[in-house]
Amino acid sequence: MPPSAPPIVDALRACVGERQVSTTPPDRVAYARDLWPRSQLDRLAGEAPQRPAAVVWPADAAQVAEVVALCRQHRVPIVPFGAGSGVCGGTLPIHGGVVLDLKRLKAVRQLRPADGIVEVEAGCVGERLERWLNRQGLSLGHFPSSILCSTVGGWVATRSAGQCSSRYGKIEDMVVDLEVVGGDGVVRRTPRADAGGVDWNAIYVGSEGTLGVITAATLRVQRLPTAQAFRGWRVPNIEAGVEIMRRAMQAGLRPSVLRLYDPLDTLMVGSDGDRKAAKGPLHSLKQGLLGKGGSGRGLRWALGHPRLSNGAVRLIPPGCLLLAVSEGSAAEARATDDAIAAIARGVQAEDLGEGPARAWLAHRYAVSFKQSRIYAAGAFVDTFEVATTWGEVRGLYDAVKAAVGRHVLVMAHFSHAYPGGCSIYFTFAGAGPTPQVMRARYDAAWQAGLDTAVTRGAAIAHHHGVGLSRGRHMGAAHGEAQRWFGALKATLDPDGILNPGKVFSEAPP
Amino acid sequence: MPPSAPPIVDALRACVGERQVSTTPPDRVAYARDLWPRSQLDRLAGEAPQRPAAVVWPADAAQVAEVVALCRQHRVPIVPFGAGSGVCGGTLPIHGGVVLDLKRLKAVRQLRPADGIVEVEAGCVGERLERWLNRQGLSLGHFPSSILCSTVGGWVATRSAGQCSSRYGKIEDMVVDLEVVGGDGVVRRTPRADAGGVDWNAIYVGSEGTLGVITAATLRVQRLPTAQAFRGWRVPNIEAGVEIMRRAMQAGLRPSVLRLYDPLDTLMVGSDGDRKAAKGPLHSLKQGLLGKGGSGRGLRWALGHPRLSNGAVRLIPPGCLLLAVSEGSAAEARATDDAIAAIARGVQAEDLGEGPARAWLAHRYAVSFKQSRIYAAGAFVDTFEVATTWGEVRGLYDAVKAAVGRHVLVMAHFSHAYPGGCSIYFTFAGAGPTPQVMRARYDAAWQAGLDTAVTRGAAIAHHHGVGLSRGRHMGAAHGEAQRWFGALKATLDPDGILNPGKVFSEAPP
Repeated sequence: MPPSAPPIVDALRACVGERQVSTTPPDRVAYARDLWPRSQLDRLAGEAPQRPAAVVWPADAAQVAEVVALCRQHRVPIVPFGAGSGVCGGTLPIHGGVVLDLKRLKAVRQLRPADGIVEVEAGCVGERLERWLNRQGLSLGHFPSSILCSTVGGWVATRSAGQCSSRYGKIEDMVVDLEVVGGDGVVRRTPRADAGGVDWNAIYVGSEGTLGVITAATLRVQRLPTAQAFRGWRVPNIEAGVEIMRRAMQAGLRPSVLRLYDPLDTLMVGSDGDRKAAKGPLHSLKQGLLGKGGSGRGLRWALGHPRLSNGAVRLIPPGCLLLAVSEGSAAEARATDDAIAAIARGVQAEDLGEGPARAWLAHRYAVSFKQSRIYAAGAFVDTFEVATTWGEVRGLYDAVKAAVGRHVLVMAHFSHAYPGGCSIYFTFAGAGPTPQVMRARYDAAWQAGLDTAVTRGAAIAHHHGVGLSRGRHMGAAHGEAQRWFGALKATLDPDGILNPGKVFSEAPP
Repeated sequence: MPPSAPPIVDALRACVGERQVSTTPPDRVAYARDLWPRSQLDRLAGEAPQRPAAVVWPADAAQVAEVVALCRQHRVPIVPFGAGSGVCGGTLPIHGGVVLDLKRLKAVRQLRPADGIVEVEAGCVGERLERWLNRQGLSLGHFPSSILCSTVGGWVATRSAGQCSSRYGKIEDMVVDLEVVGGDGVVRRTPRADAGGVDWNAIYVGSEGTLGVITAATLRVQRLPTAQAFRGWRVPNIEAGVEIMRRAMQAGLRPSVLRLYDPLDTLMVGSDGDRKAAKGPLHSLKQGLLGKGGSGRGLRWALGHPRLSNGAVRLIPPGCLLLAVSEGSAAEARATDDAIAAIARGVQAEDLGEGPARAWLAHRYAVSFKQSRIYAAGAFVDTFEVATTWGEVRGLYDAVKAAVGRHVLVMAHFSHAYPGGCSIYFTFAGAGPTPQVMRARYDAAWQAGLDTAVTRGAAIAHHHGVGLSRGRHMGAAHGEAQRWFGALKATLDPDGILNPGKVFSEAPP
């Protein structure tokens, strides 16, 4: 589609209204990006991303359907868009076309407290829904760190997990049914998750806008917990921390949060005073990574020499910070907290009291906002989460760290614990003499990390979705299922207009 | 396929061995049936079911693949078969062909206790797996009443729920990945449930052999609970009992069992002495239904006049029996039991102590074995489970009971409680002057029950699967999803040889 395509733009305006379609350069530039860090490296390298021809803000599902029908008629790609918080490039309009911003579909359609369900439109921002539910004494139990800038539809489309998924599950565990507009421009409701036969909601959860535009979701809600208990420990090493997490989850406990930081990540989250190792070059590195001073040059040097920096990290004492949050009724929160503490005592963990977990909670949504300082200093940073079974956790951590560490400085925390395993959330930072070298190192780090995860049979994504950063590895990770996707795609989106090139995707643009 | 088809039978024998293929009449008769009660009515009406041309017992997944490939080559239908406990006709070879008995695939392939998973072949009988796990200090947590005569593969294929699903979930919540032979005769493994993107396991769970032959499953296992607490109550009426169940589940409690019997079902499960109403005609009816004496003629008369019988049931006092089993650690079992008891006190429930729930546990698998006595008395009986939200439970119960009660005597219990709702398990019994009339009344009862469930937006199945008894209602229940199924079917089973006519099915034969 050429940058300006009057016939469809006029048709779109006739459908949703003059002011709800934009072809202005500022809007087209703004909607050519989400929070995928690679886009920033492209920009530094002087490359502009593909812009959409138009941005459309439909008012309701009926208008979404009309827009999709129009785009189908004109064979124009459509990218469904929530709040743009995606960190994998899933909403980039790599083939141009129309970005369909769903934020006007933000109503809570119905709450049925006795049935424990809420029906909410796709464009509702997460924090707004959660606060609204809280006023009814309820909670969705879904707290991604993007909650301030992500939507219900985005959560479902990307198979999101919140920080409390150990207790409340991932978004897929909350879906009762969905309202979806297919690539044929028809609004449909999926059968209830518990209908007899196959649960068809599953084909949409994680499909990232390629099989349909999610316009509303019925989700399970929880009673708002009446109590929370907080606890932190210094554990001797990663093994000890992972062991506590595994034992707690396999004992049938249901803490809402269990988070273990590796030594470098422990250093990063610790307060300056509480750790003797946080001195000298590592201290400077930390300050640099936190954007709290030091010269940009020093940071760039350290990140530009990842083997040296990762080597220096090995000098950090092996102790790790482990956090737990337990909740529910007062009795359950206390019982869970006590039971985890008893497990922790068994591995010589040092009880740090409530402070560290309370501090984490206070800043739980701040993570995404620190990265810009590193880019401002001329370096880059990204995160990369995988998941695996308990028996593989340590091996996967070591292997990914070794592979990625050739290109970037890398640290990790272990979170989203389940009875069968957990997620490993890697943070990596790098630098290079030119934007082109930076981007090559960034790509090499991702490639090395994903290759390692695939080789070891781990899940290549846990809660950030696939987008473009993982799309090329999906074939290896999903194998034959790519053909099953193809069958559904041909049926649900016969002309292939819905977010083309995503999920089982092409190379990054 | 004609009754004897030498070319494929010879080929099958060459593939799996002479003794692992049978075309003898006894085997073909035996495999023409599962536990669908309607087949018995057909037999009484003098109608023989369609027999398979052959029964095959492959040794492993590779042989399954070869058998499927051969059948594809000869365009011969295949019906995967576990232990034949299905009560909906899902394994009837309605188009003839080959019944593929998977019971030789019974190995536990691997147990990874640290990861909380077991990989087991499809033909492993449930009770055998559970006992084996128990010896390792583990449990699957899946206890269908058919556990003595149903298999892992059957559980996954029919989206089974066990009696403790309130705590441990349905089988779909336990599936990590599957080994499946497609209609093209290729063995494949599904991506792990937690792989990025869509969870493809979902398309096989509940597909009842129409999209692939499940040959093995990796399932999540639990630590064996160390304590159980039992409690029973007499509640004033159904509303009070449902209210206790709802409040308990929405308070975040996780009992393994909550079961509420309606007044007639309460009478049926109660011991003779413990209920004053259990006298006179109702007492005789109960004895007849339990096959404990009384004249078959009296039972047939009562069941042949359902309006009168259901009317008489209204004279039973409205009190209902509610059972709860709580488990986990000793502390958790006690805490859950106490919390439910506190809720029950709030609705004037009379605490009956441990006895009734212990009695239920002792006979938990006996339900399927009582029905033959009723058939022997010249009547019929079947069960029919649906599921709905808490707000709809009472309305659905009344509506189904009214609709079904025009044709048969009907009772129900409420079980499989979740935070959002529960299952209603109807038991109905009828009679008629001729086998043909009996079958017509049986069909009318099913039709009325399913029509009512669809109309009220309830799930038409909870844990028995679809089979033939619900197949004609799946279109109404699943709507457009029937087309999605078609797309997958065309890809996964290109020649349509896998259990043809099931799930979205034809009329019963």
